[in-house]
Amino acid sequence: MKTTGFKTFKVAEKEGQAWVTFDNPPVNIQDIPMIKELDDLAASLEDDRSIKVVVFQSAHPEIFIAHADTNFLKEMSTKAVTREDIELLDLQKVLQRISKLPQITVSKIEGFARGGGHEFALATDMRFAARGKAVFMQMEVGMGILPCGGGSSRMARQIGLGRALEVILSAKDFDADQAEAYGLINRALDADKIGAFVEDLVNRMSQFNSDAIEAAKRTVYASIDLPIEEALKEEAYWLYQATSKSPAIKRFTMADDTGFQNDIENQRNFETLLMGLQGVN
Amino acid sequence: MKTTGFKTFKVAEKEGQAWVTFDNPPVNIQDIPMIKELDDLAASLEDDRSIKVVVFQSAHPEIFIAHADTNFLKEMSTKAVTREDIELLDLQKVLQRISKLPQITVSKIEGFARGGGHEFALATDMRFAARGKAVFMQMEVGMGILPCGGGSSRMARQIGLGRALEVILSAKDFDADQAEAYGLINRALDADKIGAFVEDLVNRMSQFNSDAIEAAKRTVYASIDLPIEEALKEEAYWLYQATSKSPAIKRFTMADDTGFQNDIENQRNFETLLMGLQGVN
Amino acid sequence: MKTTGFKTFKVAEKEGQAWVTFDNPPVNIQDIPMIKELDDLAASLEDDRSIKVVVFQSAHPEIFIAHADTNFLKEMSTKAVTREDIELLDLQKVLQRISKLPQITVSKIEGFARGGGHEFALATDMRFAARGKAVFMQMEVGMGILPCGGGSSRMARQIGLGRALEVILSAKDFDADQAEAYGLINRALDADKIGAFVEDLVNRMSQFNSDAIEAAKRTVYASIDLPIEEALKEEAYWLYQATSKSPAIKRFTMADDTGFQNDIENQRNFETLLMGLQGVN
Repeated sequence: MKTTGFKTFKVAEKEGQAWVTFDNPPVNIQDIPMIKELDDLAASLEDDRSIKVVVFQSAHPEIFIAHADTNFLKEMSTKAVTREDIELLDLQKVLQRISKLPQITVSKIEGFARGGGHEFALATDMRFAARGKAVFMQMEVGMGILPCGGGSSRMARQIGLGRALEVILSAKDFDADQAEAYGLINRALDADKIGAFVEDLVNRMSQFNSDAIEAAKRTVYASIDLPIEEALKEEAYWLYQATSKSPAIKRFTMADDTGFQNDIENQRNFETLLMGLQGVN
Repeated sequence: MKTTGFKTFKVAEKEGQAWVTFDNPPVNIQDIPMIKELDDLAASLEDDRSIKVVVFQSAHPEIFIAHADTNFLKEMSTKAVTREDIELLDLQKVLQRISKLPQITVSKIEGFARGGGHEFALATDMRFAARGKAVFMQMEVGMGILPCGGGSSRMARQIGLGRALEVILSAKDFDADQAEAYGLINRALDADKIGAFVEDLVNRMSQFNSDAIEAAKRTVYASIDLPIEEALKEEAYWLYQATSKSPAIKRFTMADDTGFQNDIENQRNFETLLMGLQGVN
Repeated sequence: MKTTGFKTFKVAEKEGQAWVTFDNPPVNIQDIPMIKELDDLAASLEDDRSIKVVVFQSAHPEIFIAHADTNFLKEMSTKAVTREDIELLDLQKVLQRISKLPQITVSKIEGFARGGGHEFALATDMRFAARGKAVFMQMEVGMGILPCGGGSSRMARQIGLGRALEVILSAKDFDADQAEAYGLINRALDADKIGAFVEDLVNRMSQFNSDAIEAAKRTVYASIDLPIEEALKEEAYWLYQATSKSPAIKRFTMADDTGFQNDIENQRNFETLLMGLQGVN
């Protein structure tokens, strides 16, 4: 994958992992160069299946991503359009592309993530935030618009309708614990623990088979857009996509041959034993 | 808006806010006059965009809204109808009309909210409840029916499938803390704090632009009924509806001109700075 | 209903309740005989509306259901198929049949529930788990597949998108408290309290009218697969299905005639009074 030439973030590659560190002084504003570079990054990741997990973090001590740049927002069209003439906005397109990456995407949030910055995080698969550092807000209604980087569309998919409406209509700050209580983030972690937690999780997930990762991810996203009977078909479809490429049969055979499953001691140690199968390809 | 002539509640108007206080002795039963008056109230609110936020509360020390009146429920039809012949019930229609108001609707719950009373709260945008006072229940399955004021339809949109099934199939009381844990309400608050909390929130939200409020609300509700790609289009559609009418461009320009966004101190004070823009119209 | 002849679980019938106890040594593996017997059990329950609630528990001190049998998984097809040619897998079909039972289904989880074992629990209406005993995991991505017993389809319907992706993509153990915090289970309970809790709940629910139970269950499941306007119609449809068969009118009439609803003392005691109506048929 492409790791150099980006100006708004740095990319470090490491055994199946890409660590993307936002660094766009002075406040990590989500400007047009950042949006453009995220699109380039996504294109590069789509073509590199050796990367299994992408982590997004920030070099700024107080800010994850600030929010969309008012410099381009003030040029926004004020012409009402019909539903037929609607095209997605550039920010929506890029964040949807991030959301659809075949890799697992993780936001590690240790500062302000407001507006488009929070919408970016919502477009990743999972979010972990540091207590005492992370601060979230959707301020758009206070500016006279609505969250339009996918935030209005993705919020209720995470936290239910009532809390999504409160977050968006109140335009108030909330911290990591409140975000965890509402379900906007997966977990709030102490500021001195979030680094090790995310690293352990990413080290685990980046050992998994890339076809299985993609199959699971596609199915879960599809599941909330489809009636259950259709979702189940999608699940079966992606199962066969996975088995046609992954080492699943070899792993099941090895697990079966070694009596892996019928021993209570093995059941107790399943979490560890599973990692032992990652060498079976 | 119409503030007089209602017999089952009182309405007080105050700078962009309507405070509706249920007062239908002896127990705030949800009877036909109340349902009819809620329909009139909704019609009046649809025509008055100067109101931004509507708060629903109760004058009764122990009851928010009790439940639907058994006096009309006992007249209910017992004829099974085909899906083709289904028409929405009056209670469903009125609560759906409340749910679709262009204003932000808030339930401030300091007593029993069972059956249709709880379904009323579920039809509002957000719910705050007082510890030690609020008590919730859907009792309908115990009566031989199901929650039919939208409760069966709206419950899983708030709290997920498993907890929605438990609430409806168990017909048990649960308190504010349990309602918060399950996500049925936005927050549980101490009984002596809920008044100030709701007032502060409403004072903030009622300063926001009415077109932005409507655009955000329409998009969030649409988002859970649409596949993500369609939801994103709806989000873009409502963005242009908002910018065509709201002072968004002026506010972005002012924020940009004053260097608002690139200063860490401003980022720290964003929640307050945002309110300073509310005068820019 | 059929209570004898099962080899992988035992069935005890008791006043409107069926208690199903998994007992498939050595580790309650989800093998083909168990899947086949669950299908037989479901068929038997569909034909016996005297049963209102079905509880699933385990005879094994450490295991609820272990996971799907690697012995048949290793025979899995590795042929990618097109979406048009997809048929549901046997496990998907049986668990979907369980999910659609007219009865209330409850999982009482006091041990490992991983993979297909957890997917079984997700196919029941509600889940209660014992602290210090219940352990959950979806390990499939670590094997090279994805949860394909409905787990990938049902997870986000319970806990939102971000946490569903974490559970499935991390393939890690999590305990009852974490499952409760994420919303995967209804509640975590102390190991010495879960028995009485589930028994009380089941004793309450099994007194309710079977047509009301079915109507409520059908509507709640439909509600998350339909846009709100369609969901409300389904709710009205099932209301009339219930009133055409249940004793609802008699109960409303009795409640109304006895002044049940307009007395504050009755409102305070509603939870108990409701059970007094269960004899009115």
